Amino acid sequence: MTLEGIAEIIKNKNSFGLLPHVTADGDSIGSSTGLAIALKRLGKKVTILLEEEPPSVFNFLPGIENINSYEEGYNNSFDCIIALDTGDTKRLGKRLAVFEACETTINIDHHQTNTNFARENFVDIKASAVAEIVWDLIGLLDVEMDKNIATCLYTSIMTDTGGFRYSNTTAKTHEIAGKIIDLGVDVDKIASNVFENNTVARLKLIGYVLNTLELYFDNRVAVLTITMEMLEKANATNEDSEGLVNYAKGIMGTEVGIMLKETQDGVRVNFRSKEYVDVAEIASTFGGGGHKKAAGCTLEMNIDDAKEKILDIFKKVFVV
Amino acid sequence: MTLEGIAEIIKNKNSFGLLPHVTADGDSIGSSTGLAIALKRLGKKVTILLEEEPPSVFNFLPGIENINSYEEGYNNSFDCIIALDTGDTKRLGKRLAVFEACETTINIDHHQTNTNFARENFVDIKASAVAEIVWDLIGLLDVEMDKNIATCLYTSIMTDTGGFRYSNTTAKTHEIAGKIIDLGVDVDKIASNVFENNTVARLKLIGYVLNTLELYFDNRVAVLTITMEMLEKANATNEDSEGLVNYAKGIMGTEVGIMLKETQDGVRVNFRSKEYVDVAEIASTFGGGGHKKAAGCTLEMNIDDAKEKILDIFKKVFVV
Repeated sequence: MTLEGIAEIIKNKNSFGLLPHVTADGDSIGSSTGLAIALKRLGKKVTILLEEEPPSVFNFLPGIENINSYEEGYNNSFDCIIALDTGDTKRLGKRLAVFEACETTINIDHHQTNTNFARENFVDIKASAVAEIVWDLIGLLDVEMDKNIATCLYTSIMTDTGGFRYSNTTAKTHEIAGKIIDLGVDVDKIASNVFENNTVARLKLIGYVLNTLELYFDNRVAVLTITMEMLEKANATNEDSEGLVNYAKGIMGTEVGIMLKETQDGVRVNFRSKEYVDVAEIASTFGGGGHKKAAGCTLEMNIDDAKEKILDIFKKVFVV
Repeated sequence: MTLEGIAEIIKNKNSFGLLPHVTADGDSIGSSTGLAIALKRLGKKVTILLEEEPPSVFNFLPGIENINSYEEGYNNSFDCIIALDTGDTKRLGKRLAVFEACETTINIDHHQTNTNFARENFVDIKASAVAEIVWDLIGLLDVEMDKNIATCLYTSIMTDTGGFRYSNTTAKTHEIAGKIIDLGVDVDKIASNVFENNTVARLKLIGYVLNTLELYFDNRVAVLTITMEMLEKANATNEDSEGLVNYAKGIMGTEVGIMLKETQDGVRVNFRSKEYVDVAEIASTFGGGGHKKAAGCTLEMNIDDAKEKILDIFKKVFVV
């Protein structure tokens, strides 16, 4: 269905349930709160349903008060359900019940793998963030864009493009960002909210992890390690350890960054490459997988043995 | 003078010396290499003169081969000198000689404090980066924009806006960035080149520094410390320690980040605030200065005494 068609359906409905995907991120939350504000401006009733608490880093978002915790009693309360940033029905979690109970369901997404699971589907894989689609949709709903809506959509775009740094960033992404700035949005503050939110535990953990740095093959491979002892000492959760592999990748002259994370069952290994090494191929050697520049695998052994096995493979790449 | 006027002067000259400011950064280098490529396209002779080696992180820039090391012999070689991103003649360093020896001098800048030191001056303080002005100038010179020029200007904009995160980012900044993406520039690669370039020494230093994290006043103040011993152990330079205060500021719920850096003469203190604390005021208590959200001072004492003195001041801010 066209976005115009979806706008027409929305205009004729009154009570909306918005469903970001489970373990909602910046795009799914920001596009939901932005759309919620716009729908309310049209006099509609709107609830964003989440199974879990939204990450506290998004508490600054206008419209965040529209988020409600999912309970089964919601099943028959909506005459239109809109799933946002959700590739398939699994990503709706328990809220699949409320989705299935509703006659008019809409699916707005940008994942290539989207299964077109709703009655009406609009999937634009060129959109860097679902917020780009919601930007257009709000225009079609004749709601005047304001600073609050723009703050939500800008946050979505910032998070899904890594601050306009990922290759999904398009001319349209920047066009929308420019218009958003003209609406008076405080980019400095949003960036600070979104990107300056380390927990104390995460910061301590980073300190311990960086002390483990090892370099191989003329610095082209950098290895970092997280042990269970470090997590405990830093009082850190698994979430606190996310993305730390980028410190290894982010060294000048390094092509591959590797994170070895000790778990109850062995070692979780994450690979990141900058340019030319296909780490998905390397991960697949150990039964793992991923993309060319970001992949992972799990090895059922201790850290030292895992490191040796992995470096053996890289020997074939870097030592000719 | 108008930018149109400057374009006319440039069209009528043949041999150009481009002068980025001393200790050149991404904007001054990128806007210089971008302009150099465009001028060469017009059949002009162009040299970018630097006193020091340009930072190696910019080696990927097209046009970087136009940079030459300054020697006095250059004094009479140009019929037009263009200073870029240079607020005053002090920022020309020794190259002031070549500037003064030239009859036709042009000053293209965006610093509010620019002293209009050239014969022809174009200063636009709304430009996030000088590259924005150079983008317009190249259009006025009727040179077709291409991927190489765009890569240079995009790098300038990325560095001077912190990746579109600082409040100097405008709708025009995004408009230009969007057009640059349409020219096929690899934003992912540029971001990786510009922002993923930690030295091994810096990464080790970050590890040591994060291990010093202390929190005060319900986590609203975070303090990090760099000792001379850490610098030595990490084999790090002063450059490697730059900006680490942002780790202290970047903690969820923290308002003020403080870095205490041990020097031969005492302690260099850097303050960063997120929203409401005026750290320039606090720095001025100790004879220092800066901006509301970024300031510093020097204390001639040891680290423990400096920390105590500083926390005493914050007690007045946070404990009512």
